[in-house]
Amino acid sequence: MILCSICDVLRYNRANLKRIENYILNFTSVRYICITPLVRNKWGTKKKHRNIKLNIFKETMADPKLEEILAPLRSSVKEQGDIVRKLKAEGAPDLDVKQAVAELKLRKKVLEDKELSLAPTSTTFDRAKMEDLLKRRFFYDQSFAIYGGITGQFDFGPMGCAFKANLLQAWRQFFILEEQMLEVDCSILTPESVLKASGHVDRFADLMTKDLKTGECFRLDHLIKAHLEKIAVEKNTPPDVKAECRDIHTKLEGMNKEEMASVMKKFNMKSPLTGNDLTEPIEFNLMFGIHIGPTGLVKGFLRPETAQGIFVNFKRLLEFNQGRLPFAAAQIGNAFRNEISPRSGLIRVREFTMAEIEHFCDPNNKKHPKFDAVRNTELLLYSACNQMDGKSPEKHTIGSAVDNGLVANETLGYFMARIQTFLIRSGVDPTKLRFRQHMSNEMAHYAQDCWDAECLTSYGWIESVGCADRSAYDLSQHSKATGIRLAAERKLTEPKIVDVIEVVPNKATIGKAFKKNAKQIVDALTTLNVVDIGNIEAKLVNDGSYDLVIDDNSFTLNKDMIDVKRYKKTVHVEDVIPSVIEPSFGIGRVMYTIFEHNFKTRENDEQRTYLSLPALVAPIKCSVLPLSSNSEFHPFIKELSSALTKLDVSHKVDDSSGSIGRRYARTDEIAIPYGITIDFDTLKEPHSATLRERDSMGQVRIPLDEIAKVVHNLSYNKLTWKEVENKYPKFEQQESKGN
Amino acid sequence: MILCSICDVLRYNRANLKRIENYILNFTSVRYICITPLVRNKWGTKKKHRNIKLNIFKETMADPKLEEILAPLRSSVKEQGDIVRKLKAEGAPDLDVKQAVAELKLRKKVLEDKELSLAPTSTTFDRAKMEDLLKRRFFYDQSFAIYGGITGQFDFGPMGCAFKANLLQAWRQFFILEEQMLEVDCSILTPESVLKASGHVDRFADLMTKDLKTGECFRLDHLIKAHLEKIAVEKNTPPDVKAECRDIHTKLEGMNKEEMASVMKKFNMKSPLTGNDLTEPIEFNLMFGIHIGPTGLVKGFLRPETAQGIFVNFKRLLEFNQGRLPFAAAQIGNAFRNEISPRSGLIRVREFTMAEIEHFCDPNNKKHPKFDAVRNTELLLYSACNQMDGKSPEKHTIGSAVDNGLVANETLGYFMARIQTFLIRSGVDPTKLRFRQHMSNEMAHYAQDCWDAECLTSYGWIESVGCADRSAYDLSQHSKATGIRLAAERKLTEPKIVDVIEVVPNKATIGKAFKKNAKQIVDALTTLNVVDIGNIEAKLVNDGSYDLVIDDNSFTLNKDMIDVKRYKKTVHVEDVIPSVIEPSFGIGRVMYTIFEHNFKTRENDEQRTYLSLPALVAPIKCSVLPLSSNSEFHPFIKELSSALTKLDVSHKVDDSSGSIGRRYARTDEIAIPYGITIDFDTLKEPHSATLRERDSMGQVRIPLDEIAKVVHNLSYNKLTWKEVENKYPKFEQQESKGN
Repeated sequence: MILCSICDVLRYNRANLKRIENYILNFTSVRYICITPLVRNKWGTKKKHRNIKLNIFKETMADPKLEEILAPLRSSVKEQGDIVRKLKAEGAPDLDVKQAVAELKLRKKVLEDKELSLAPTSTTFDRAKMEDLLKRRFFYDQSFAIYGGITGQFDFGPMGCAFKANLLQAWRQFFILEEQMLEVDCSILTPESVLKASGHVDRFADLMTKDLKTGECFRLDHLIKAHLEKIAVEKNTPPDVKAECRDIHTKLEGMNKEEMASVMKKFNMKSPLTGNDLTEPIEFNLMFGIHIGPTGLVKGFLRPETAQGIFVNFKRLLEFNQGRLPFAAAQIGNAFRNEISPRSGLIRVREFTMAEIEHFCDPNNKKHPKFDAVRNTELLLYSACNQMDGKSPEKHTIGSAVDNGLVANETLGYFMARIQTFLIRSGVDPTKLRFRQHMSNEMAHYAQDCWDAECLTSYGWIESVGCADRSAYDLSQHSKATGIRLAAERKLTEPKIVDVIEVVPNKATIGKAFKKNAKQIVDALTTLNVVDIGNIEAKLVNDGSYDLVIDDNSFTLNKDMIDVKRYKKTVHVEDVIPSVIEPSFGIGRVMYTIFEHNFKTRENDEQRTYLSLPALVAPIKCSVLPLSSNSEFHPFIKELSSALTKLDVSHKVDDSSGSIGRRYARTDEIAIPYGITIDFDTLKEPHSATLRERDSMGQVRIPLDEIAKVVHNLSYNKLTWKEVENKYPKFEQQESKGN
Repeated sequence: MILCSICDVLRYNRANLKRIENYILNFTSVRYICITPLVRNKWGTKKKHRNIKLNIFKETMADPKLEEILAPLRSSVKEQGDIVRKLKAEGAPDLDVKQAVAELKLRKKVLEDKELSLAPTSTTFDRAKMEDLLKRRFFYDQSFAIYGGITGQFDFGPMGCAFKANLLQAWRQFFILEEQMLEVDCSILTPESVLKASGHVDRFADLMTKDLKTGECFRLDHLIKAHLEKIAVEKNTPPDVKAECRDIHTKLEGMNKEEMASVMKKFNMKSPLTGNDLTEPIEFNLMFGIHIGPTGLVKGFLRPETAQGIFVNFKRLLEFNQGRLPFAAAQIGNAFRNEISPRSGLIRVREFTMAEIEHFCDPNNKKHPKFDAVRNTELLLYSACNQMDGKSPEKHTIGSAVDNGLVANETLGYFMARIQTFLIRSGVDPTKLRFRQHMSNEMAHYAQDCWDAECLTSYGWIESVGCADRSAYDLSQHSKATGIRLAAERKLTEPKIVDVIEVVPNKATIGKAFKKNAKQIVDALTTLNVVDIGNIEAKLVNDGSYDLVIDDNSFTLNKDMIDVKRYKKTVHVEDVIPSVIEPSFGIGRVMYTIFEHNFKTRENDEQRTYLSLPALVAPIKCSVLPLSSNSEFHPFIKELSSALTKLDVSHKVDDSSGSIGRRYARTDEIAIPYGITIDFDTLKEPHSATLRERDSMGQVRIPLDEIAKVVHNLSYNKLTWKEVENKYPKFEQQESKGN
């Protein structure tokens, strides 16, 4: 069983169809398999591949019959969840916990895939068909295709680009303007020191292995998984080896470099493409390295996320906000990851747009002033606890989830509710959206709580938005690395008297003695802590001198150079390193999800597909279609077009030949929500035209001078189609089908 | 004389002030010099530097007295211009032409600087003061400053970012939506082959030299210029050496690598920082190299411009446009250049945003359907001819400029007029804007005509927008490199009968003979041209076989494998490689220009500076200021804020302490055009508030429920302040000054 090289899904093997199908349903998230064998025709061209659908998304759950089937899987998860809890409570060795967690994850996955496979098939979805539409109408396509293309890179064409621009504009409106966040636009080229401090230089890596002869690289976990799967389904594999494969498969996620190396060795793994030997596992940092400036000495990277740009500007932003907490900063921009083997279309790419918010607040007060406005929003929450117990996600209002401690604090909860509202408004199907809590082993060690907004797609549940409480980690790290205090001031409820101990350097004598090093010494002295000062004082009293070490240089200071002062001071504020709540949107993933959730087929006409994107984000709001090329229509089209432009309604005049029905179908494909038809009745006074709505295909007749305003109001959610239908007479003519 | 290390302008040297001043005015574009010597205080900190202004921008020209002074400079330019013309007409050697052009450029510069120096000083401008404001209110600032910063990189803070976002949104509206262009969003990581074809790999380079010991790099032309300037003003330099310096200075721009190397050698140039020896000149490509994917084998670059992304997508875009010409594609995005020594703030940076348009049209028909709408737009045109003749730029309507052939075609002219309208609408001062035509030696060899929109700033005239007719160059290059035909079809006025000669490969025999190479051979055969086919036919007849060479492999074909067919065919279309007209905006440069042109000081109060950005691009449209912290104001503020949000009017509530006057001054600094004050009269029915306009400081009293709509209409150019003043009663209270 191998992956199809065209579509990345498991290939069909006629001999073992049933067995493979069961395996797939139980152990993978693949919902489609290829049914054309990987043969090439005699000119070397690959034959077109086709998918067959294995099964379809769930829409609702909790059918008692289904629950009966799922019950053993649920308890198998819970059993393992309890083991993990116990190990943790006992403080068991790290490796044991990791392996137990890996097993837990696998059991969760089996459960989840079963749930999906049992769900009623109320929607049909054909990915190949959708991708064909998106390519054909140039929503997006592979970059540099005329040069052979590069995997993991995509260019957005006019429709994709307009959709993206509208989505980002809506995001800016919904988050930045409504919440008065501070938007920034920071550099992509980032010096190494910044990403060293943030932890990316040391930890932002995947394991890979290389073909010793060709140099071809493979992501190690993918390689091992594929190899084990292959062995497990081979006819002549003895049962104990199969069991072992299964066992390793289970533990793979928790394995470190050495463990994976021994698995490679044990199964004598070779390159799946050439059969050549492979290297030992290599840690491969996912950041693109660059050299800034002509000397080649300033090492840097393309940023792997936009967040760091906000953190390094914290001081300026705090000052901009007049020193007050809380405040939020936001950034929309590109980030880069040198994926070892990019796949799954827009889901895993090398260059992508993110929209990130860093909300800085007092760690002792994570209340949010607008929380009451979202308190009753219902979210489908998949808590860490439910995941460990093998239970399904549950609906909660965000108010009750915060009240009972399921979600850590109001600010985190506020953003989760806002994220959900934004996603649904932009076209995500609410029935395919959930918030999954990170289990403690998934969370970065500094994070206090983390929930991912996950969307169900044909690739399974994919993380589209992360929402984490990152505590004070990032600011602390950059403070430590630069020596610059990245903190805010908190007003004390009442003033406090504190003891101050301070080194006062005698600049004159130091300057005279150390010349050009004087500044460095004075700077070092002013940053000493209480303990250091105590030590220096003691040394000066006992020995008469003290050796100050800066970097690798030692400077001998005597009594004349230093005074130690002690006094009492009344302070009204104290320092506080803010906590950060971070909602982080992967814009490409959100876009992909919206494509899938809005790809539809007309009833009774399988060939006629369309995209039901909400008008807010639709690339073009309106089409203008003259019934024929009759020149009498021209002045009306021109007038209408300029009226629409004046109201900022993006539109497309389609005066190509083809019936109105066929042209509607074309505009439906590019998600244009409203269509205006100019016909012979338009020529008569009072002038009027037909307005059609994409999803219902309903039509009304509207006076020509009102129509631009109506479309404007429809496009910006100031009017509903229902209201339009109530106000204007229905237009009854049937759409002729593509003739 | 050396450059100030803080502000990049020439440093003042008290002993020679007058001489230096003359030199500066004649030979450089510097308008300020530093008056504090480069001394360090005893702790090593640089003292604050101060600038003195040498002179100020011109506002108008053509004063007869001034013309008298300028006359000899003008004729000196003309004299040299005539020499250049003559050399070109005679087909003189390239080097001679280059040197003559370099001399011409220098004379032009002398003339231009003199013009600037003689212009009446109607505006005062203090760059240091403006930069202080932009930093202090975080419009933008150096990136990664807490890590020591990187030159040539800037982060935009909330105000700069909002300004930038508004400017780009206005651009999108003005160009993409109004003209229904096809917007794309392409990859930044670009494989080498693409940039090889475009010419960037071979030609996108500057010359530099390195300090042999420290490795420090210098841009070679800058280094030589500075060295020669230093020698030229030294007291004991003999007159003949001074003359020589002057001569080399003149010719520097036209010099190649070897010539510059010999100048370095002759004057024994060392590193200006360390006195160490320098390397030979090195060609330094300005693109950032990267490796895509884990193998490190796919070489690429960060794109140095956005245009190539459009060219490589030409086929898809043409198809999207249903095969029809003309159409325009546009892209807004970041590009990267690894400048050797970035300087001049936002003008020359390593990472920048561009907005580029590629308008594809029939090379035989560059008319523009909307040209009549701009025909009467007046532009200040600085033609190549006027530049050669030492004349000033002249005002023309774009209609007459195209009619008399000064501007090459309607489409180019249409975009120039549109560019001007956009720049002025966004805040560029129309009196400091001109279009300068490239002289033939400046233009890329393939360009047919090129005009730069230049803006006058304290750095001199800077190119902000290029507008070029690039002919079919880019598409041809990519066609050549990929073998993929990037052409459109032109309908013939009447069908044509053509002779067709065609190779018909016999796939079966070829397949049998060459197995896996068969496809390659068949492909190669189908792309042969008439001459090749003739040769093959002759060879087959004479020798019975033909050796087809593909890459480095040779395949021997015999008669059975090939048929040559000849027949007649009626064709209705012919192939045409479109011409490209390219308007290309440097967004950072446009932003910087707008900052300079809108930095103002209140009459009678030099300390009170403000930015008069047009409401369209202002970061925040409106402030809401309660007169005091009285809690009775709160509900009114909340209500007003939500009304403004509903109408998409970005606003800022400033309830900090401080007089209204002081808070107005603060909002003036961040360019907020309108301010609403809630005072005790607001509490009375009917509720009302004061609305203030930033530039005039005029105030009116408006009913509270109308105010949001009024500000919305003002912000989006649907209402003028004059109209508001006519409609609502004036509010007379004086602004108290900053107390």
